[in-house]
Parts: sequence; C-alpha cells; structure tokens
Amino acid sequence: MRKAIVSLAVFAIAAAPPPPPTPQVRSPGDAVKAAPAGDWIEIPASDLLVMDLAGGKRVVIQLAPQFAPVHVANIRAMARSGYWSKATIYRVVDNWVTQWGLGDGPFPAPPGVVARPPEEYQRSAAGLTLMPMGSPDPYSAMAAYSDGWPVAMQVGGTVNATYCYGAVGVARDAAPDTGNSSELFAVIGSTARRLDRNYALVGRVIDGMENLSALPRGTAEMGVYAKNQVATPITAVRIAADMPAAQRPRFEYLRTGSPAFADYVQLASHRADYGVPSPGAALCAVPVPVRKKTS
Amino acid sequence: MRKAIVSLAVFAIAAAPPPPPTPQVRSPGDAVKAAPAGDWIEIPASDLLVMDLAGGKRVVIQLAPQFAPVHVANIRAMARSGYWSKATIYRVVDNWVTQWGLGDGPFPAPPGVVARPPEEYQRSAAGLTLMPMGSPDPYSAMAAYSDGWPVAMQVGGTVNATYCYGAVGVARDAAPDTGNSSELFAVIGSTARRLDRNYALVGRVIDGMENLSALPRGTAEMGVYAKNQVATPITAVRIAADMPAAQRPRFEYLRTGSPAFADYVQLASHRADYGVPSPGAALCAVPVPVRKKTS
Repeated sequence: MRKAIVSLAVFAIAAAPPPPPTPQVRSPGDAVKAAPAGDWIEIPASDLLVMDLAGGKRVVIQLAPQFAPVHVANIRAMARSGYWSKATIYRVVDNWVTQWGLGDGPFPAPPGVVARPPEEYQRSAAGLTLMPMGSPDPYSAMAAYSDGWPVAMQVGGTVNATYCYGAVGVARDAAPDTGNSSELFAVIGSTARRLDRNYALVGRVIDGMENLSALPRGTAEMGVYAKNQVATPITAVRIAADMPAAQRPRFEYLRTGSPAFADYVQLASHRADYGVPSPGAALCAVPVPVRKKTS
Repeated sequence: MRKAIVSLAVFAIAAAPPPPPTPQVRSPGDAVKAAPAGDWIEIPASDLLVMDLAGGKRVVIQLAPQFAPVHVANIRAMARSGYWSKATIYRVVDNWVTQWGLGDGPFPAPPGVVARPPEEYQRSAAGLTLMPMGSPDPYSAMAAYSDGWPVAMQVGGTVNATYCYGAVGVARDAAPDTGNSSELFAVIGSTARRLDRNYALVGRVIDGMENLSALPRGTAEMGVYAKNQVATPITAVRIAADMPAAQRPRFEYLRTGSPAFADYVQLASHRADYGVPSPGAALCAVPVPVRKKTS
C-alpha cells in the first residue's frame, strides 16, 4: 500500500506539466530596490538610541521627537548620564511587549529629566506632511505616513504615532501618569494598536528586534520574570551622536513622499506576488523600509 | 541640582491628590468572565493536535476541518502513523513564522495521505453562521466570526480563514502546489494576513504558543536554522482523540453566536478601559476566547 502511494506520488511529479512562464509580478521589495539613492534619508545620529545587551547583542531604536519631544529629551538625558547602567530586560509577554529599565525604584532621575512629562499621545497635523496609506484603518479615520513614520489621523484632525510591531512606548503605572521614560517597552506582538493615544510612543526598533522578541516569556505576574528566570543585562545605552563617529551605527529610510515609496505601498498593499492579491493591508503590515547605511 | 530634582519628585508624589474613584469601565475580560457556562463549547478531541517538544514543552493546535478538510485529514493520518517521529522545528523568522516538519525529503507519506490536496484556500459561506465583527477589514469585504474562528468574507461571497497570530498553515514550494501538510508553520508575527487565500490554513495554536514564538530566529537563508543552531526536536505528535482519555488536554471556546461573545467583541473593539477608546479594532486583535476545560 505504501509502495503504491509512493509510486503514485512519483508519477504525479513526473507527469506534472512544466510550470507556465512566470509573469513578471513585482514584489514590494522590487520597488524598494529600484528607489534611487536620493530617495533614502539618513536618520540623525541624535535620534538613534543604541542599546547594547549582554552577549554582544545590540538593539537600535529610532527616536520620535516629533511625536514625544519631552519624553525623547528625557531619554537622551538618561542615556547621557548613564542612568540605565544597571538596567535589565525584565518583562516579556507573548504577543504583547518586552519591557526594560531599572524596575521598581525609586531611582532618582538625572538632572534635566522632566519628572511628569505631558501626555504627548497625539499632536496637531500642522507641520507634518501626510501621505495617505490607502487602506481602511480600524483604529483611525485615515492611516498614513509622515516623514518616515506610520501614523493615524483621527476624527478632529489630530495625528498619532502607531503601535506597530517594534514600536517603543513608555511604561507607566496608571493615568494620568505618563511615565518619565525610565521604563520602556517594545511591541513584540500583533495587537498593540489599542495603546495608540493611551501610551506615549517614543520610537521604534530598527535593528536587533530579535534580541527583544525571542527572549523567554516571563512567568510571574504580568509577564515579569520570575525569580528562577534570568533578566537580560543591558550593558550600555547611548545616543549614537555621543559615540565616536567611526563607531556610530548609521541607518536610512525610504522617503515617504517619494514615488518609489508610493510604488512600494501600492505593491505591499495588494501582494499580487503571493497569488490572490488582498484588497488592502493593515498599516503595520506595510512598514517604512529602513536599512543600514553603508557609505 | 540632583537633590533639588529628587525633592521635587518626592514632593510631587506626596502632594498628588488621591486618584478619583475609578469609573466602572468594563474590560473585554469582564465580558468573558460573565459568560454563562453554557456559552462555552468544548473542542472535539479529534480536532486537537498535540505536539510535544523536547524539554517537556507542549503545543496544542485546534484543527480547522471546516476550512481545509483534505489537509486536516492528511494531518490526522500523519499523526496516527508516527510520520513526524523525527521532525524538528527548523525555521524561525522574526515577525513572520515558525516552521516544522521533516524538512527536505523525500519522505514517503503514510497510507491515506492525499499527495496533492485541493487548494482549500477559501470556501462557500453555505453552512456557516457568520457574526460580523464590526470593524473595517483591509483584507476583505467583511471581518466576521464563524463557529469560533475569525474569518473574512470576500467580494463574491466566499469565506476564508484568516492568518492571525498563532494561525497554522501548510508550507509549500510554489503554486499551484498546495503542500500535503507534512511541513507546517505557525504565524508568530503581525503581518501574515497577506497569506489569506494563498496558503491552506489548517488550524491555530491554542496553547503553548510561546514554545514556538520565543525560539531563536534562524540565521540561514529564509530563516532556516544554520548548522551552528539547534533545531528543536518534536518528540510526539498525536491527535487528542488517540490519547488515553485521562491524558487528553481539553479546551473550550466562547460560542461566537452568544450574547457574551457579542459583548466581548464590542468591548475589545473600543477598549475604553485603556483611556481613549479606538474607533475599532483589527480582526486579529479580537481573538475568540479559548480556555482549558477544567471539569
């Protein structure tokens, strides 16, 4: 019986007609590859938070001062003062967030840190260049991109940064406290957009995401690591601009106002390269292309 | 200076007024807790695929015969024959999928396995009871639930299962091959709905998801484990119905036609318990409640 099945399978393979010529269906990656060099914008070194972990691993976060200027100023001040020199990654919740910092304190913040920043959960659209994303967004009136970031415009005209995979937010106890950015989290799951407009979004992971997402999940309450689990030590947290120039990591993103980006969004929203194209896509499923800058 | 800041912080905490009485804002969990026992439906033991991993870890998958009957029959036949006795988890791609099976073969399939199943990517709505989810869905004309599953209805009236977090699909080489279910993958990321209607969806992980999502990411091509990485051995794959009754894991889901479920969807789609409620939510962000059956 087994032999018959095997023979049948072999026959089926042998008898299968050669595949038809593959039509030239372009993928989103094709659009990115075709973008001219001038469409890539380097991220300022002052906006790169470089977090080194035990074991020689590194996470690089692009900060978002245009959405949370006071929180980002706090983060820069803490990084420059060595505030996080004994910080760890101490909480990991599956399909939700990975969180780090000093944990339960009090740990007096360094000079210049605003103890109680404003909410910074959303902002005026004034001064932003919005490119509509084109698919319906359950979380807003309109999904869009603005200067390299996925954003949402709400009824009333405010704009907020969005909790896509890799987004970095500020942990806090309870409203109206917004946290001071000493404890941060990154989204490692698929359901975090309900945090939009409720937690300050200060950046996004642009490199080393797997060093946050593949960690063991915490087994104590709220996904905090239990006593028999080992929190990952954070060995250094620096702003790239404070590092020697030759050591700074450098990244660039595809200009969200460019024709190449519009082409990419169109292709990524309908993925004809997979077979049946979807009518649209989620904002978070069409991330802004970011790459290491090599020259 | 530091002292002044510290004092200010202490003062701010000491002087903070007591929090106002918390209004009774109900969470989605409240709706689930309030569901009467009769609204929970046990998943048939013949639909539970129990996958044991090295180290005493376990993953339980609910199969979806209503969407992919031939593929699910293949899976049952492979489990019962011990086909996967030397299988491993050999591919992990961040924000994408974890994949397992025997890897590159050929490994002759056991008797009863259909070598080339039909696509089973979508089906008629006939015989399904659809409950509209209520938020716009970029991937379809209407997001809904059907007998405990998140589904999408397309223009034309077909219905497909959806690649939410934890969805299990059939790996394949290239169209028009659909795979025979010998190699499976689970979604560990946030952007997989572009697989809808392009890859056969055969089930979803309902327990032990962290045993698939927290694995080290593969560093070889396509996220396959490199030679210096250790693939996780799969020690047993069984259908719960084939296990001794006392050893079978048992699970139940909240009936998607129940008032409690409608209440849950409403609360989960707008999350007033977080502060600013969103106008809606993604289908995959409002999963069907599933829990262990304890009695």
